[in-house]
Amino acid sequence: MAAAGGPGAKKGILERLESGEVVVGDGSFLITLEKRGCVKAGLWTPEAVAEHPDAVRQLHMEFLRAGSNVMQTFTFSASEENMESKYFEHAEEAVWAVEVLKESGKPVAATMCIGPEGDMHDVPPGECAAKLVRAGAAIVGVNCRFGPGTSLKTMTLMKEGLQAAGLTAHLMVQSLGFHTPDCGKGGFVDLPEYPFALEPRLATRWDIQNYAREAYNLGVRYIGGCCGFEPYHIRAIAEELAPERGFWPPASDKHGSWGSGLNMHTKPWIRARARREYWENLLPASGRPFCPALSKPDA
Amino acid sequence: MAAAGGPGAKKGILERLESGEVVVGDGSFLITLEKRGCVKAGLWTPEAVAEHPDAVRQLHMEFLRAGSNVMQTFTFSASEENMESKYFEHAEEAVWAVEVLKESGKPVAATMCIGPEGDMHDVPPGECAAKLVRAGAAIVGVNCRFGPGTSLKTMTLMKEGLQAAGLTAHLMVQSLGFHTPDCGKGGFVDLPEYPFALEPRLATRWDIQNYAREAYNLGVRYIGGCCGFEPYHIRAIAEELAPERGFWPPASDKHGSWGSGLNMHTKPWIRARARREYWENLLPASGRPFCPALSKPDA
Amino acid sequence: MAAAGGPGAKKGILERLESGEVVVGDGSFLITLEKRGCVKAGLWTPEAVAEHPDAVRQLHMEFLRAGSNVMQTFTFSASEENMESKYFEHAEEAVWAVEVLKESGKPVAATMCIGPEGDMHDVPPGECAAKLVRAGAAIVGVNCRFGPGTSLKTMTLMKEGLQAAGLTAHLMVQSLGFHTPDCGKGGFVDLPEYPFALEPRLATRWDIQNYAREAYNLGVRYIGGCCGFEPYHIRAIAEELAPERGFWPPASDKHGSWGSGLNMHTKPWIRARARREYWENLLPASGRPFCPALSKPDA
Amino acid sequence: MAAAGGPGAKKGILERLESGEVVVGDGSFLITLEKRGCVKAGLWTPEAVAEHPDAVRQLHMEFLRAGSNVMQTFTFSASEENMESKYFEHAEEAVWAVEVLKESGKPVAATMCIGPEGDMHDVPPGECAAKLVRAGAAIVGVNCRFGPGTSLKTMTLMKEGLQAAGLTAHLMVQSLGFHTPDCGKGGFVDLPEYPFALEPRLATRWDIQNYAREAYNLGVRYIGGCCGFEPYHIRAIAEELAPERGFWPPASDKHGSWGSGLNMHTKPWIRARARREYWENLLPASGRPFCPALSKPDA
Repeated sequence: MAAAGGPGAKKGILERLESGEVVVGDGSFLITLEKRGCVKAGLWTPEAVAEHPDAVRQLHMEFLRAGSNVMQTFTFSASEENMESKYFEHAEEAVWAVEVLKESGKPVAATMCIGPEGDMHDVPPGECAAKLVRAGAAIVGVNCRFGPGTSLKTMTLMKEGLQAAGLTAHLMVQSLGFHTPDCGKGGFVDLPEYPFALEPRLATRWDIQNYAREAYNLGVRYIGGCCGFEPYHIRAIAEELAPERGFWPPASDKHGSWGSGLNMHTKPWIRARARREYWENLLPASGRPFCPALSKPDA
Repeated sequence: MAAAGGPGAKKGILERLESGEVVVGDGSFLITLEKRGCVKAGLWTPEAVAEHPDAVRQLHMEFLRAGSNVMQTFTFSASEENMESKYFEHAEEAVWAVEVLKESGKPVAATMCIGPEGDMHDVPPGECAAKLVRAGAAIVGVNCRFGPGTSLKTMTLMKEGLQAAGLTAHLMVQSLGFHTPDCGKGGFVDLPEYPFALEPRLATRWDIQNYAREAYNLGVRYIGGCCGFEPYHIRAIAEELAPERGFWPPASDKHGSWGSGLNMHTKPWIRARARREYWENLLPASGRPFCPALSKPDA
Repeated sequence: MAAAGGPGAKKGILERLESGEVVVGDGSFLITLEKRGCVKAGLWTPEAVAEHPDAVRQLHMEFLRAGSNVMQTFTFSASEENMESKYFEHAEEAVWAVEVLKESGKPVAATMCIGPEGDMHDVPPGECAAKLVRAGAAIVGVNCRFGPGTSLKTMTLMKEGLQAAGLTAHLMVQSLGFHTPDCGKGGFVDLPEYPFALEPRLATRWDIQNYAREAYNLGVRYIGGCCGFEPYHIRAIAEELAPERGFWPPASDKHGSWGSGLNMHTKPWIRARARREYWENLLPASGRPFCPALSKPDA
Repeated sequence: MAAAGGPGAKKGILERLESGEVVVGDGSFLITLEKRGCVKAGLWTPEAVAEHPDAVRQLHMEFLRAGSNVMQTFTFSASEENMESKYFEHAEEAVWAVEVLKESGKPVAATMCIGPEGDMHDVPPGECAAKLVRAGAAIVGVNCRFGPGTSLKTMTLMKEGLQAAGLTAHLMVQSLGFHTPDCGKGGFVDLPEYPFALEPRLATRWDIQNYAREAYNLGVRYIGGCCGFEPYHIRAIAEELAPERGFWPPASDKHGSWGSGLNMHTKPWIRARARREYWENLLPASGRPFCPALSKPDA
């Protein structure tokens, strides 16, 4: 088993991406630490670093064990990673930030929290991506606000926009761990379930393996998560892309691929679940027959 | 703010229950540590205590901060808590165990992992409870296998069985954190989603406040959780019953009651969610329109 | 093709049932004629016979063509059929009526509009059935108020009650054409969708073939429908039981068994639907992702 | 009460539309007569006119009583109505047909069976509409294949396309009576439920009142239905637009507006349903918790 982060652990992000490496991001800090009792919803401020350092360190360790080879999110500053990173609602604001950040001499990753409908001024994703690259970003993509399927739609549009403009950049996606096929332009914060009743929307590990594969096939090479992504979701990315990366994440010592850990179960019908086809095709029930499948966003 | 465990933290379980105290149990260890990368599904063995002691300690701390005033589950032995505890599928086996355990001189809590249909030999819950009390159990109830609503149905039947038999005992409930209205006699392990696609069934904090209130109204005074119960679910029990217990859990310093932490949000429609009526009446969407609401158990 | 009603068309109901014949009832008059513009919901009075005799005659013809070999429902009097028939909410009232009706010398069919929970005084279905047979009913069963699956549960309980009491009678079922797994003791009238938004609950023809087969296997030999049963639902009963009856209904000249009429369709994926396995296993979507699967009854 | 068809019954379609009249179309013949046992699915040929003339006449009468003031659909020729009418999958083919038909000297209504994604050659709805008007159509719109909400999206795009091209025409919509938010370009025939398991998708009368109002607000003045539209759905259009049309349909003598016929019901919770707010806001349950909300089209 390779060490956490694998062979490329000491290189900078851009160097890794340019060498063709797949970079696995980390997941949710604020929403996860809220559920662990260390962060307050609403303000979502990161004082947990000071108040509950053990909890923060523990979560970092879990993401590392799960196969993440960056440690970006919680401090909102990625300078240890030799990368400057921000995310934005408006292309215009993002462009200004990229122009400032690139003066640092480090590679700039610019992600936007937009969906397929584009930014708050109706700039479509393809155009947003082109603006960011022209301003100097080396890595572009989306972060937060939208679920796996929706985020990949946006990435497709960004990729098409770059191709149409004759531009190139590394692609990066950090989806929510929640399914949001019903959200509008503002994303999941406008759904009535935000932030305290999102549970039924939580992705399974299989949903995330599918997300990782589709992102990879689209050409995205920095693949991580945002709110709702727990360590086992990150592990699902790392396991799906283990063939491409050439190593398995440490936490796979506690996970049989595609449910294979069930093959010793005493009940035969549970043993029958120890296979890929089973989990790939399962349509999981909500257990909530009085609830709808979709909601109307509040805005 | 009272210390974790509150005023009664040093007393034994039975002493507390007899003084009318509400005891808040803890939650899920194996399933939660599996998602954190420290336990393997299928075997579900507790070697994490040796291999990942920090992770285990951290989760214990989270449950304590959330308001639990027992530390029972993970070691499968509650001797520090001055209580012997086991749970069973068959009333007969449970009765033998209670008879042995009561020789220890400690109070015996006997929970069964049964639903409203009774044990595997069709002994109904009321009769199971009566057998356990006659064998010497001071505390009886249910643990695991069934979701909040189903577990409370079983508790109602147990209570009625004891009343009909002229017996008394303290009542204890430790439901799953997953909704399982569709499971059969064998509980959630027979649902096709077990154990890797249970996410859409995960309870919200509001579901658990409701569970805590209904359990209390039914006369249950030991209220906790099992698989799927995260620290914030335990906090929900502790917050719902804070008036009765006379203190709030430590982790409530990171939680506005009934969403009140949203009342400073910049978007007015999100501020409008900072109230009890909103969350109590919300029917959360699954975000999965291609999936059903219920499944047929495999057995 | 045999004539409507088949070989036994001239015999009385009881004679047919005693010879082992399967009798196919008819379906919905009031609710169907309401949708055709001839009956007013709320009062549900049968003045359509006078006001719209062509519409009533047309619907009768449709049920006959569909394979019904009784013409019972609309006039609320079945004397042409040599049978007295009523349905009741209370076992006690039903017993009085049976005692009066049997004085006519005709065989008495007594159906109750109850579900598995029994009548309004909590008399369970098995006991209701026994009371009716002891009072003189030759045919007992259920009619209206509950959907196919629920009605068959009630029939099972009636059958068990008769067996336990050492009694025998012919069994009769006339379910709603609407699925009502969520209704309470009062049946579908207490569901919030009654009577103007029941559409999503409407049974498919395949649901009804399944209902007919299960009813037959249970020993029920008078199988029909009530509110919501359209002519094609009656045809589904007649087609499912054509092997047992020995003839197909006239309207099958316009219906390929199990979708076989699609086998000439120009689109290959629609041709692929021309087979039994397809329709038997299909889980039809509601097309309403903002709506729940179940409702809470109003009473 | 005005006669069926109302004051304008003798005028031609175009004359009516030009005078500002709202024309209410009729509904489903083939699918409705299939359920009545007179038409065979798959071939869908109209031999019922010869074989079951009473059934056809009866259905015509029901649509007339429901408030339709055209009799267009079943014979596939509307010459009695002084209008030539066809519907098409391809704009190109539609244009040819319009060019031929306008030689008849009668006004030409050209509807297409397309959705918001446009025709089979990717010509978007706005462009289709413009082509048809340039070719000589006086009335343009959509017919069949898509549900109420989807059809109105297409109409919006058609209207915008005409405005952008500086063209004018009368607008016409004849939606399915089934909800199809999940269908692709080919419409409902590609959904797995077509044609024998569409029941859960069937529109309520309230859905259709909403459709009629939205169509009217969009400027559509020929409003009818297609497959799945039963007489009571046509009545719902006629009732919703009774204020604009100045008369109520004959069949309203059997229908209390917005459920008012329930106001004499013996059960108070059913009387409470006799009001507009109740039915407008109801989210009807499917009664099918094992089924999904949406399907994936086969093509």
